[in-house]
Amino acid sequence: MDMHELTRELQVKNDSKIVLFVADGLGGLPLKPGKLTELETAHTPHLDELARVGVSGGLIPVKPGITPGSGPGHLGLFGYDPLQYRIGRGALEATGIGFALGPDDVAIRANFCTLDAHGNITDRRAGRISSEESAPLAVRLRQVKIPGIEIFSEPVKEHRFVVVFRGPGLGDQVHDTDPQATGVPPLAPKAAQPGSQRTAEVAAEFIRQARELLAGEARANGLTLRGFSNRPNLPSYEEVYGLRAAAIAVYPMYKGLARLVGMDIVGDAKTLGEQLDVLAQHWNAYDFFFIHFKYTDSTGEDGNFAAKVKRIEEVDAAIPAIRTLGPTVLMVTGDHSTPSLLKSHSWHPVPLVLASPDCRTDRCQKFGENEAIAGGLGQFESKYLMPLALANAGRLGKFGA
Amino acid sequence: MDMHELTRELQVKNDSKIVLFVADGLGGLPLKPGKLTELETAHTPHLDELARVGVSGGLIPVKPGITPGSGPGHLGLFGYDPLQYRIGRGALEATGIGFALGPDDVAIRANFCTLDAHGNITDRRAGRISSEESAPLAVRLRQVKIPGIEIFSEPVKEHRFVVVFRGPGLGDQVHDTDPQATGVPPLAPKAAQPGSQRTAEVAAEFIRQARELLAGEARANGLTLRGFSNRPNLPSYEEVYGLRAAAIAVYPMYKGLARLVGMDIVGDAKTLGEQLDVLAQHWNAYDFFFIHFKYTDSTGEDGNFAAKVKRIEEVDAAIPAIRTLGPTVLMVTGDHSTPSLLKSHSWHPVPLVLASPDCRTDRCQKFGENEAIAGGLGQFESKYLMPLALANAGRLGKFGA
Repeated sequence: MDMHELTRELQVKNDSKIVLFVADGLGGLPLKPGKLTELETAHTPHLDELARVGVSGGLIPVKPGITPGSGPGHLGLFGYDPLQYRIGRGALEATGIGFALGPDDVAIRANFCTLDAHGNITDRRAGRISSEESAPLAVRLRQVKIPGIEIFSEPVKEHRFVVVFRGPGLGDQVHDTDPQATGVPPLAPKAAQPGSQRTAEVAAEFIRQARELLAGEARANGLTLRGFSNRPNLPSYEEVYGLRAAAIAVYPMYKGLARLVGMDIVGDAKTLGEQLDVLAQHWNAYDFFFIHFKYTDSTGEDGNFAAKVKRIEEVDAAIPAIRTLGPTVLMVTGDHSTPSLLKSHSWHPVPLVLASPDCRTDRCQKFGENEAIAGGLGQFESKYLMPLALANAGRLGKFGA
Repeated sequence: MDMHELTRELQVKNDSKIVLFVADGLGGLPLKPGKLTELETAHTPHLDELARVGVSGGLIPVKPGITPGSGPGHLGLFGYDPLQYRIGRGALEATGIGFALGPDDVAIRANFCTLDAHGNITDRRAGRISSEESAPLAVRLRQVKIPGIEIFSEPVKEHRFVVVFRGPGLGDQVHDTDPQATGVPPLAPKAAQPGSQRTAEVAAEFIRQARELLAGEARANGLTLRGFSNRPNLPSYEEVYGLRAAAIAVYPMYKGLARLVGMDIVGDAKTLGEQLDVLAQHWNAYDFFFIHFKYTDSTGEDGNFAAKVKRIEEVDAAIPAIRTLGPTVLMVTGDHSTPSLLKSHSWHPVPLVLASPDCRTDRCQKFGENEAIAGGLGQFESKYLMPLALANAGRLGKFGA
């Protein structure tokens, strides 16, 4: 069952404001079993106050045991079933650098590689060439000209870059050209379906011209293409929820994910403080605000328990400024857990607190993993959070008579 | 969504060991509302210790309110959606006596019955003939010869036996021959689909020869055939999880169920003590071990609260020997509840404890129904237990980027 069938049918408009504050990778683990997690360790008087007046729960990002990447993690929070809406690798890479994919685009993850005199690959990653060296090469490939096709070539990092072909009818069912081996040439682009034949031809011509442009390079004289993908076809927030939605994020990936569901990207904040300013500035123009905070995840990935605790305290300190604006529904959670113990994303449920006038407050006194999972919302899949938010905002009518 | 699509895609191999210890029918009920269940009454210091270091939850075998048989109960624990994978009655009966069904087999539940001189049924169960009397008759029917078909006729209990036809292209869509009434003859085997026509013909010939072989019997001079079914098509543990799996069970039914998902049946233990020896002997050869203990269910079925308590204490006493081996993930649960109050399987959630280094310990201090359902894993369908086990064993990669 697609929840959007229900929210489309039942949506109601009103003056309520909904804020979803995502502390990326918020959930954690204690360093020793039975001790406190990062969130439980942090001094979080404002989040604890939210827990007292609101209702808590534990979010399962995808399904029990499944650890999500940022894409599925956020799609779930946005109310899009991450198992139904799969974002192709090329589209995610383009999204990750903030490239605004259009409906006529096919996005491709590209690698520079090293070819010998016979055209065989000697290094699939071009000696892990530095970003400084590779970025101008990606820009140089914008000189490729193919009639009827607009071409974008965008630097990413080290040997990686993104290529986007824009033109009508470009399917994305094209096999990778990376042979996953050295001593052999890159594969020719090959369509897996007739509707992608034109894309394969465009890719072949792109590669031909690109190799001429790279001919003089010592290491990055070749390229491989992987993960051909069209923009995922996600219905917009406006359509499925009736919400005018704004995203206030610092990093391109999260702006990109928000753009995919039709949110406006507002402001150009570089810090959480600036994000709060942007929120206040745009308060009247939108119904829904997605605020993204990255550093709870990155400190977790670094394995730095103490630093993650500090970052959580930054999140906590931001709460009063948000509450001052008077949101009808304020939710604080994460897209997944990133325990510093594991130095990676994990499958553990993510603590959630939701505060609204009609939320049915539970007995939770603090915001933390152990309190939250025993909270009034129980444990549930992230994709149900948006319907809950709409209900708490009075934006969902009755189902059936 | 079939979780196996995810586990196939995300599985990672490592040196971890996973143990699933199933105390059949573990969940119970207090004899009076508000009192303690069998598990809560039992003295279980080792399970309580697991609850302290691990994380607890409540397993819903199929869906809320649905009481499962052993088949669906175990399929859920093994991670196979019991609503998707239905085991036919004949296949389950064959599995229950440990018959290793092959891909070319059709298994049938057979009953001896009593026929009068006109061929009409006078007793559908042949006077509930004793197992001692009926077993040689089932064996006698192995004399039936049908060209191109291998025939197995296996005693079960009292008037019941199992017939298996083995041969290429034998469909299982054949109607039961039991008319569910006396005073009428058994029905002729009739195919419900063209692909099962040959099976119906083989069954008719089997019945014809069988009646000749049984002609002199006073009570068991006829037979009916029910529940024609092919082996269910279950993908293997190796394929869906990347696990080399071993089953250590005493009773044929549980060996049979494990065999259906591709587990090796190891050892020939008759007691829990011997099962633990078998576990230690095979520790290095497998990644996953399923240990089955029957008597928590059978004492529940007997309505013997005190005996079930004692059997639970046997389960408890086995925990140290398992933990000594150093499993990465140790899970103790049941396939369903069997409250001695009800003398039957029930729908109540089954207590679960899972211990692993990364499990996110909750605040449960004891192992019991009331503690477990408020545990860190919440309540969830049994089919998600295996993905959780794999995650805790570090055997699942990230979903999406």
